[in-house]
Amino acid sequence: MVNINDVAKKAGVSKGTVSRFLNDKPYVKRETRASIVKAIKELNYYPSKIAVSLKKKKTNMIGLIVADIVNPVAAEFSKIIADYLNIIDYKLMLMNNRNNESIDSYIDSLIESRVDGIITTAINISEEHLKLLKKINFPFVFLGSGISNSGLSMVLDDDYRGSYLITEYLIKLGHKKIAHITGDKLGGEVTINRHKGFTDALKKHGIVYKKEYVSESDYSTSGGYNAAIKIISLKSKPTAIFCVNDYSAYGAMDAVISKGLKVPEDISIVGYDNISISSNKLINLTTVDLPKYEMAKKAVEILIFKIKNRENDKVFKSVIAPELVIRESAKQIC
Amino acid sequence: MVNINDVAKKAGVSKGTVSRFLNDKPYVKRETRASIVKAIKELNYYPSKIAVSLKKKKTNMIGLIVADIVNPVAAEFSKIIADYLNIIDYKLMLMNNRNNESIDSYIDSLIESRVDGIITTAINISEEHLKLLKKINFPFVFLGSGISNSGLSMVLDDDYRGSYLITEYLIKLGHKKIAHITGDKLGGEVTINRHKGFTDALKKHGIVYKKEYVSESDYSTSGGYNAAIKIISLKSKPTAIFCVNDYSAYGAMDAVISKGLKVPEDISIVGYDNISISSNKLINLTTVDLPKYEMAKKAVEILIFKIKNRENDKVFKSVIAPELVIRESAKQIC
Repeated sequence: MVNINDVAKKAGVSKGTVSRFLNDKPYVKRETRASIVKAIKELNYYPSKIAVSLKKKKTNMIGLIVADIVNPVAAEFSKIIADYLNIIDYKLMLMNNRNNESIDSYIDSLIESRVDGIITTAINISEEHLKLLKKINFPFVFLGSGISNSGLSMVLDDDYRGSYLITEYLIKLGHKKIAHITGDKLGGEVTINRHKGFTDALKKHGIVYKKEYVSESDYSTSGGYNAAIKIISLKSKPTAIFCVNDYSAYGAMDAVISKGLKVPEDISIVGYDNISISSNKLINLTTVDLPKYEMAKKAVEILIFKIKNRENDKVFKSVIAPELVIRESAKQIC
Repeated sequence: MVNINDVAKKAGVSKGTVSRFLNDKPYVKRETRASIVKAIKELNYYPSKIAVSLKKKKTNMIGLIVADIVNPVAAEFSKIIADYLNIIDYKLMLMNNRNNESIDSYIDSLIESRVDGIITTAINISEEHLKLLKKINFPFVFLGSGISNSGLSMVLDDDYRGSYLITEYLIKLGHKKIAHITGDKLGGEVTINRHKGFTDALKKHGIVYKKEYVSESDYSTSGGYNAAIKIISLKSKPTAIFCVNDYSAYGAMDAVISKGLKVPEDISIVGYDNISISSNKLINLTTVDLPKYEMAKKAVEILIFKIKNRENDKVFKSVIAPELVIRESAKQIC
């Protein structure tokens, strides 16, 4: 393995000079720099970012923990964040949270690897870890879902409002028998707020909430499929289903078609998130647009602020308004 | 910031003892270990994996570079690899290759961050970097796509055979006017082999290859959409389209429907990859199953072998056979 001594020898300078060069210290002459760069290239010497980072205490590396990389929302957030970080010369270290697992160990790994900050879309985190992050004032931002009383920063969309709007849209189309495929507890406040938007819209319009019309999914297509099968097997089928996210709506649509029914002719189906494939004419899902770009950008901005102002313990909470996207998976009822 | 001295003081032992403990050296008594663990917990001390890794020269971190995280193939590979690594106590550092960009800088970053090895599904890499990886015998595996003369290890499926099979399937359904949405040069040998499987199947069955029936896409849905629009705008429309991957096939289906035509009644469409949503009844895509699980597992096994046998410069090439998956997006022609 090539080391710093080899580089110094090849460049004809002292080890201290190479070290000063690697650490961006002044007092290295231009021609000396050139000969060091030449030596590094010729020797294929990779200066250890790790060793440098121990001195600089910065790695320009951001950790992102996503709840399920196979869900296109996570993939879209990852891409937006990676692209944005690239512009400001940061790199992204992405970790996929395995189903149901606590993210404590992911946070530990990322902090131990000295990332400068962490963004997470997964929220299965212990009280202890929340307190620790707060205590050491570690740059940390929840994205898309958060824990309100954690005292940590978060960027959300207004889940309550989005769900209220899309439920009201179904009601205005004439639907009275409206089911909800709700999220599970791993969805945390997102699950709660989307459910509450649904129930409040029903109440506002004088529609009685029916327990059997609510079935739980884990935000996956298979979860949506199974929940929909339960709902459409009821004696008194609903005429519309509001799914907690697009990805489970795909599963619900699959279930409806598997049972020989049609979307939207027999059952209207709507989702939440507006992932890119929802606009495909085959799917054409009426949904709520999660403002992913604005949200991801805001999360990065907050994180970078926190990294650059490490002593500042300001807590940010940003809530971005969602909008309805009307397509063809829900229709007027006669 | 808590440091090793604080831990030593709190535990009532010497700094050298804490250091020996952190580096898994012997000669630390059981009761001493217990008191160090207690002190570490009470002080919320994160021993720097970085400092430790500099001594151990191992980080148990694997780098994965994917060509486009928004393509579900990349997300599915990432999930399979992350899950598998988790079992063997490795962590995954994932990087998303931005469109058209060289992955040289990603490789540099990962090596500088001291990952133990790299798997990549992206192949836009310079000659220089290929030589360097070979020269320093760095654990490196191409997954899904590779560069044959690089002298580096790779795990592929038999793209030629898969494409041949699905083209022959269309021919057996009676299609003679078959178009191909091909990949671009960033797809490297995958693009070439899938195209060759297509042309050879035509030739074998005495069908003349028509240049205007081949249109290029960048493996994305929008690429598939645009390529399909060109093809179906031809005076003499094809009766079937074989798309280089499922993701571009979704775009092609979208284009066909947008033009008021039906799949498969007017045009049969088939893909390649069998990503999970292709089985959804709304899409129901006839395709070639890329054996993602077997491929990803094999790539990890080769990488771990190379990490554990760093001096062994054996080059592995593993080619796994793909299979047809018949669904309903292609039909018999009368």
